[in-house]
Amino acid sequence: MTHPNTLHKPIRTKAQQVLLDYIAPIARLSDAEIDFILQEIKIREYAKGKVLLREGQIGNICYFVLQGCVRQYYLVDGVEKTTAFFTEGMPVNSTFVFDDNASKFYLVCNEPCALIEGSPEDEKSFFEKMPKMESMNRVGVEMELQKSQDAFAEFVIANPETRYLNLMKTRPDLLDRVPQYQLASYLGITPESLSRIRKRIMEK
Amino acid sequence: MTHPNTLHKPIRTKAQQVLLDYIAPIARLSDAEIDFILQEIKIREYAKGKVLLREGQIGNICYFVLQGCVRQYYLVDGVEKTTAFFTEGMPVNSTFVFDDNASKFYLVCNEPCALIEGSPEDEKSFFEKMPKMESMNRVGVEMELQKSQDAFAEFVIANPETRYLNLMKTRPDLLDRVPQYQLASYLGITPESLSRIRKRIMEK
Repeated sequence: MTHPNTLHKPIRTKAQQVLLDYIAPIARLSDAEIDFILQEIKIREYAKGKVLLREGQIGNICYFVLQGCVRQYYLVDGVEKTTAFFTEGMPVNSTFVFDDNASKFYLVCNEPCALIEGSPEDEKSFFEKMPKMESMNRVGVEMELQKSQDAFAEFVIANPETRYLNLMKTRPDLLDRVPQYQLASYLGITPESLSRIRKRIMEK
Repeated sequence: MTHPNTLHKPIRTKAQQVLLDYIAPIARLSDAEIDFILQEIKIREYAKGKVLLREGQIGNICYFVLQGCVRQYYLVDGVEKTTAFFTEGMPVNSTFVFDDNASKFYLVCNEPCALIEGSPEDEKSFFEKMPKMESMNRVGVEMELQKSQDAFAEFVIANPETRYLNLMKTRPDLLDRVPQYQLASYLGITPESLSRIRKRIMEK
């Protein structure tokens, strides 16, 4: 006799689904493995404005965004220079395992956030309980490395207008959810230049 | 009785030492494990000018530079835009496992090169023979991700002069071994601007 639970897929929350969508191209998991992962992870909620990491702090937590937007910025001569927006389905690396240096940047919740949190110790214990996880993690990090290298190259070769057009294509949600001055900083231009670019594109 | 071989460290070539120096902070290996790795890897030598990957090709080889310099560039309206220089001790990612897309960039040997080459199949078989290798690989890729994200952020927040000063600090060898027009392109400026920056710094 089949147990009734095996007849239909369990219902996942929207936040859980964000994680499962991230894992799907990396590994095929059984329902039992998925349940195990969802039990193991620690989810924390933070209010908008919460600073997760400051310049000078030793970072030792990794995050994965289930909901919201985490912004990375550097303080250069007292001015915030935004260098990354991490939104749903993106890991946030803030552990500096290899050089043991203090963080050079800030991480702040740009919106109310639901984040998976993990320390290196959490990760180690997770891998011990589910060795497959280490292999999945490796593939995930390779995926992030590829994205990061592509994004770097595209930033170097593009002029600001092309950078904005790329963003419209690859991350259209950012254009609405992020203040214009942060977006301009992220594109390496002034808010005035961003206005001109938007106007030019609208007129086309 | 101790076997005489255990009394002194085996002699490694300069190229082998580059790989061992890369692995050292990642994992502690026995001499037997090191011998196994050095036996397993495939080293190929290429002449200056050899194109390893072209735009439009499906990349399926990973490299690790033992000697020489591999340059990554994009062709934008017929102009080469240099986006990376991979030198001794740097892995070169050119497999696009996840999107199965054709390469958007070129990889060319800027100097005579000695490279470790590996396909995804080589990697898989390596991991099967030495499972510890997968864990080492994961840590290595995490290290590369951190470097890539740092480099991106530093590029975004810095002006061209600061980018040049950063390069003087972090990769001084590049300033001598790379043609000025490629270096200028990599810094996102014209060769004339690069000359002016160099002059300004010399005068300080």
